[in-house]
Amino acid sequence: MGLASAVLVGALLAGAAQAATPVKEVRAWREANEKAVVADFIKMLAMPNVATNVADIEKNADYLTGLLKARGFTAEKLYAEPDTPPSVFGELKTKGARRTVVFYAHYDGQPIAQKGWLNDPFQPTMRTALPEAKAVDWQAGAGPLDPEWRLFGRSAGDDKVSVQALLSAMDALKAAGRKPSVNIKVLWEGEEEQGSPHFAALVNRHRETLKTDLIIMGDGPVHQSGRQQLNFGNRGIVGFKTTVYGPIRPLHDGHYGSWAPSPTVMIANLVMSLRDEDGRILVPGIYDDVQPVSPAEKAALAALPDVETGLKRNLAIGRNVGGPRLVDGYMTTTLNVRAIHGGDTGPDAANAIATEADASFDIRLAAGQTPERVKKAVEAHLAAQGWTLVRETPDAATRGAHPRVLKIEWDQGGSRATRSAVDSPPAMAVAAAIERTVGYPPIKIPTVGASSGMVEVVDALQAPMVGVSIANFDNNQHAVNENLKLDALWRGIEIYAALLSDMSW
Amino acid sequence: MGLASAVLVGALLAGAAQAATPVKEVRAWREANEKAVVADFIKMLAMPNVATNVADIEKNADYLTGLLKARGFTAEKLYAEPDTPPSVFGELKTKGARRTVVFYAHYDGQPIAQKGWLNDPFQPTMRTALPEAKAVDWQAGAGPLDPEWRLFGRSAGDDKVSVQALLSAMDALKAAGRKPSVNIKVLWEGEEEQGSPHFAALVNRHRETLKTDLIIMGDGPVHQSGRQQLNFGNRGIVGFKTTVYGPIRPLHDGHYGSWAPSPTVMIANLVMSLRDEDGRILVPGIYDDVQPVSPAEKAALAALPDVETGLKRNLAIGRNVGGPRLVDGYMTTTLNVRAIHGGDTGPDAANAIATEADASFDIRLAAGQTPERVKKAVEAHLAAQGWTLVRETPDAATRGAHPRVLKIEWDQGGSRATRSAVDSPPAMAVAAAIERTVGYPPIKIPTVGASSGMVEVVDALQAPMVGVSIANFDNNQHAVNENLKLDALWRGIEIYAALLSDMSW
Repeated sequence: MGLASAVLVGALLAGAAQAATPVKEVRAWREANEKAVVADFIKMLAMPNVATNVADIEKNADYLTGLLKARGFTAEKLYAEPDTPPSVFGELKTKGARRTVVFYAHYDGQPIAQKGWLNDPFQPTMRTALPEAKAVDWQAGAGPLDPEWRLFGRSAGDDKVSVQALLSAMDALKAAGRKPSVNIKVLWEGEEEQGSPHFAALVNRHRETLKTDLIIMGDGPVHQSGRQQLNFGNRGIVGFKTTVYGPIRPLHDGHYGSWAPSPTVMIANLVMSLRDEDGRILVPGIYDDVQPVSPAEKAALAALPDVETGLKRNLAIGRNVGGPRLVDGYMTTTLNVRAIHGGDTGPDAANAIATEADASFDIRLAAGQTPERVKKAVEAHLAAQGWTLVRETPDAATRGAHPRVLKIEWDQGGSRATRSAVDSPPAMAVAAAIERTVGYPPIKIPTVGASSGMVEVVDALQAPMVGVSIANFDNNQHAVNENLKLDALWRGIEIYAALLSDMSW
Repeated sequence: MGLASAVLVGALLAGAAQAATPVKEVRAWREANEKAVVADFIKMLAMPNVATNVADIEKNADYLTGLLKARGFTAEKLYAEPDTPPSVFGELKTKGARRTVVFYAHYDGQPIAQKGWLNDPFQPTMRTALPEAKAVDWQAGAGPLDPEWRLFGRSAGDDKVSVQALLSAMDALKAAGRKPSVNIKVLWEGEEEQGSPHFAALVNRHRETLKTDLIIMGDGPVHQSGRQQLNFGNRGIVGFKTTVYGPIRPLHDGHYGSWAPSPTVMIANLVMSLRDEDGRILVPGIYDDVQPVSPAEKAALAALPDVETGLKRNLAIGRNVGGPRLVDGYMTTTLNVRAIHGGDTGPDAANAIATEADASFDIRLAAGQTPERVKKAVEAHLAAQGWTLVRETPDAATRGAHPRVLKIEWDQGGSRATRSAVDSPPAMAVAAAIERTVGYPPIKIPTVGASSGMVEVVDALQAPMVGVSIANFDNNQHAVNENLKLDALWRGIEIYAALLSDMSW
């Protein structure tokens, strides 16, 4: 048929799909099952999942494998090699479906060492709307749960919500007698917050099993405006820790403060040699490999709604750094000082010179950069600043032999960035299914600021990737008091139901 | 009599005094009583004495008052006002003595929060010579104790050793049937490590009680060469803590790192705006009031033995900051960064932007400076750097209303410097008595780098001050694993016996 006919058929198909959106049935099911969904989610969140603890990760993986099997999936744990954190793989074939979709999420979580948690991060607690956040007995009372309530616990937003939304969506579709429209493959990673050190090998090893036409990446929060968004890439990351050295024993600063080198000052100087307060990285050559922003990406960026004014109020900051738009920095590289520490603080602070001080950094990589070249540039810069770089804790002889000794420890892992096209047919099918669910076209972001192991998946599976986020933007991911708004969970279930049953291309 | 006769009589008197040095009898007594002395010292050190805990300080004061009374002193606790840390005052008149000497020391100690203590800082433990420092059963065995052994515990060197040395010297003199040569007044402070906030008022209130011809200041370590030294002043001090603010809740640095201000960077920038790595203070005008070094002081400084080469090896530092001599900085002002802290460190470091960061400082003041003018200069500098200074923790509205908010908290207390003449008659009497004890003329230091409340004592009592130090220079004062070498305690007892019984002018 001719072009005009093809367009017509396409429009008719789209119309048929629109008639098939499951949102009403899914919402009705959810309204009838809110407490059961919350109870399931709490059970999942109560399982400790800090990525450094492989035994905990295994327990989570076993539990999730069971949940998939209970819903008719074939399911198993995939490994890169023995004794590494498994990914959970599940498959459910759909009779007659022409397309296969990999639904990616991660079930591991960030560390929990930060002070100030309102509740144990692994004892998920329902709380009233912010800023009150009062613990509430959500099981009492008859009516619907307040959608402004939030469930506080590690991974509530990053990223077990995506796992729960898919599972509940399957339940809702089954209750409604609705069939998926694609072959479903689930891939839930167990070491994302650790920097995905084994994930590339895992995906490559199971490339045939994971063969797909599209990867739906379910990580990250929705747009700060509260609107649904799609994204088409992630930044990469490399992290490192530095330690600087002063006298080998602590010294009275009255007697030695004018003569002995001070590690608390050296570490501050080191930080300021790497970036300025406005966010500009001072490492020569670090911007050289950054891929330029294309006109299409610029158009997508320009179309983003204003969030900055509200964000400044929300965050109580009297200024921002870098460009005026939040996303201005997403297309390039950013250096964050995770932590700086030296000496004792608080009321017991001693008038002493510390023996060492440290600072911890991570660099987000833009498309085009590689961890290897960034590491080289950083080390060359540090050496040029007069630092003698060592990999192990230096002994007294080493400390005494050089004017400025720096121990540098690179985090395991590290990843490149990835970016997929914003207008491929599967990407447009995702956007259409979500628009039919929420009633407006989702925002499109060429890349998010965060990192993930997805670059390896995209490379290995040679399939486009679309990021679909459902967590509320103010979910405190990676930080103290991570939480998920119930409203976000409800909408997430509807969106996953649409992605499972209302997509075709 | 004529001048020649006077000189002759002076020489004869000096000769008579020399014949009277008690060092041999004192040494014999100590050799016979080593374990009893150590047991007494351990009992004293086992009493917690962190200056912030007034109840603990009271217990120490009661105990010390008892020890003085047991040695024939009239003794009492002196207060500036109720509920403040007392000073211990003791008096023992000597029949026929023309001169009165105040022996100052402090019995309070630095905080103990630092990590890495080999033993509980209030369970004093004898250890073998460095670097082994193995706990040793000093009560076992018959022969003399190894003088290289060290007693580890808070205040062992700073400054209960001076208290113990005086008490043991009294015992030794009594055993030898030796009479003091001066009227003795003991003044042991209980809040020196807290910055002596009430000590000036205390001394002024009891000015008549404390009337004296000379103040012997028993605080601080001996010269790094291991030789006895006299000092004639202390630097002053002011301390402060600063806190800077980022977003009001912690943020994922991938999403916000290029846009939200980073408190870990701001605090590093703040540090580097106050001083450089080489120790130069960058606060305009801060050096203006510093009293110039006089020719006599320059001569005394030039005569100091070289310690720097050994110190660099001892401290395992590959360079020093400031001038080449350790004492170069003592005659001026120094800014130390006690601590810097922001974000989480270690293996659980999160890829997040912290909500705040802090740094803690102290500035040592030279003669001529006042705390008030230094505070003004620092605050004017910070304001000129664009900081909005606040005294209380700012609320969200305050944080959002200003681009850069800084909370500044000045430590309580603070003191000016003091310097006495290096060649007054009582100062020369002290030097002579010590020379007869140790066999060489003590080193003379116009001022030490450390601070004390002595400026108030010198002002109030209008008497010259000579600092006599006995702790080993590597005693880790103010820091973890503070310790006293037994050898230093033995020599300290001999020196105090000489100061008590072998001084005249």
